[in-house]
Amino acid sequence: MIRISAFKSLDPMAQGFTRDVSVRWALEESELSYETVLVSAEERKSESYIQKHPFSQIPAYEDNGINFFESGAIVLHIAEKSVLLLPKESQARASVQSWMFAAMNTIDPVVKNFEQVEYFTPDEEWARLRKAGAIEAAQRRLSQLANHLQNREYLVDQFSAADILMTMSLRNLGPSDLFMMLPAIVTYVQRCEARPAFQKAMAKHMASYS
Amino acid sequence: MIRISAFKSLDPMAQGFTRDVSVRWALEESELSYETVLVSAEERKSESYIQKHPFSQIPAYEDNGINFFESGAIVLHIAEKSVLLLPKESQARASVQSWMFAAMNTIDPVVKNFEQVEYFTPDEEWARLRKAGAIEAAQRRLSQLANHLQNREYLVDQFSAADILMTMSLRNLGPSDLFMMLPAIVTYVQRCEARPAFQKAMAKHMASYS
Repeated sequence: MIRISAFKSLDPMAQGFTRDVSVRWALEESELSYETVLVSAEERKSESYIQKHPFSQIPAYEDNGINFFESGAIVLHIAEKSVLLLPKESQARASVQSWMFAAMNTIDPVVKNFEQVEYFTPDEEWARLRKAGAIEAAQRRLSQLANHLQNREYLVDQFSAADILMTMSLRNLGPSDLFMMLPAIVTYVQRCEARPAFQKAMAKHMASYS
Repeated sequence: MIRISAFKSLDPMAQGFTRDVSVRWALEESELSYETVLVSAEERKSESYIQKHPFSQIPAYEDNGINFFESGAIVLHIAEKSVLLLPKESQARASVQSWMFAAMNTIDPVVKNFEQVEYFTPDEEWARLRKAGAIEAAQRRLSQLANHLQNREYLVDQFSAADILMTMSLRNLGPSDLFMMLPAIVTYVQRCEARPAFQKAMAKHMASYS
C-alpha cells in the first residue's frame, strides 16, 4: 500500500501548485493506487512527522513500510517501480535522470527566485530592485530549455518522470510575461498538463480543499 | 572509459567549488578511473557541447558512449554502478535517494541565495536589503539539517552519494557566521572533507589550475 501526505488546509493561491501533485501525477501515470493522509501545519512539526520528513515538508511517502521524502526522490522511486516513466534503454534512462536533476537544481531555483519577486513579495524594496536580475537569471536558463524543446514533444523521446518534475516547476511561472515570451515552453507545459493522469492527480488534490 | 568535462580556466575564487568536484569525488570513492576534458567558455557554447549538456554547464559525463549531465544525476549513476555509495537495502537506499534530492532542491537553493548576497554581489542595494531574509531562509533549512545530523556521522547510516552532494553544497557557505553558528554542520562537512577520496578529487581538480 502506498500512502502520501498532503496539506490539510492550503491557501487558495497555493492550491494546485504543491509538491504532492507531482507525486500524485506520477502515481496516476503508473496506474498505482494510493491513500492520502492530510496533515496540519502543527502535525508537520511533530517528532513523528520529522522522522518521516526531516524538513517537515509535503509530501512524505510510504510504500510497504519504506519511507521516502522529497518529491524528486519519490517520483524517481515510482518511475523505477513502473517503467512507464523511466525507460530501460541506457541513453534514454541516462537522459531522464539528467533532466530530473536539471528540473530540480537548474530550473527550479531560478523559477523560485522569480516567483518570490513577482508573486510573493513584489512590494518589498529589495524585490523591486532585484526583479530585473531575477528575470534575467530565469530567462537565461529558460531560453536554453526552450532551445532544447524546439521540435520536441517531451524532454526525452517519450513522456517521462522528468516531464512531471519540469512541468510542476514551470507551472509556477504563472501568467507572467516571462513565461508568455517563451512559446516553446508554454506549449510544452500545456501538452503535459493535458495528460489525463495530470487531470486526475489535480482533481484528487483539489478535492481536499473544496 | 569514463570521461568528464571541467573548466579550462577558473577564477581563483571558484576553484575547489565547481560541480566537477562532486563527480570526481564519487569516482574516487568508487575507485573508478576517468579522463578529464577541459573546455573553455566558448567551447561550452558550441552546438556539440550543448548536445551533451543543454545548459552549457560543467560537468558533462560520458561512460561508454552514454551521456549524462547534472552532477546530481551523474553521482546517482556512479552510485548505481558501484554500490559503495548507494546501499542495496530498501530503506537505506530510499533514504539516500531522498537526501540526494534534499541536497539539490531543499538545501542548495537557500545556500545559493545566501552566497549571492554574502559573496557575489554584497554591495548591491537589493542584496543589502535582502541579506537578513536570505540568512533567515537558509538558517531555517540548515537548522533542520543540523537537527538531523545530531548524533549522526552521515545523513544515512553509512557515507553515501547523498553526503557528496550535501557537502559540496554546504561548502559554499564559506567562512560565514551562518555556517559557524551551526557546529553540527561544520563538523559534518569537516568529516566528509577529511575522506581520502575527497582529497584526491580536490587534488586532481586543482591540478588543472596550478
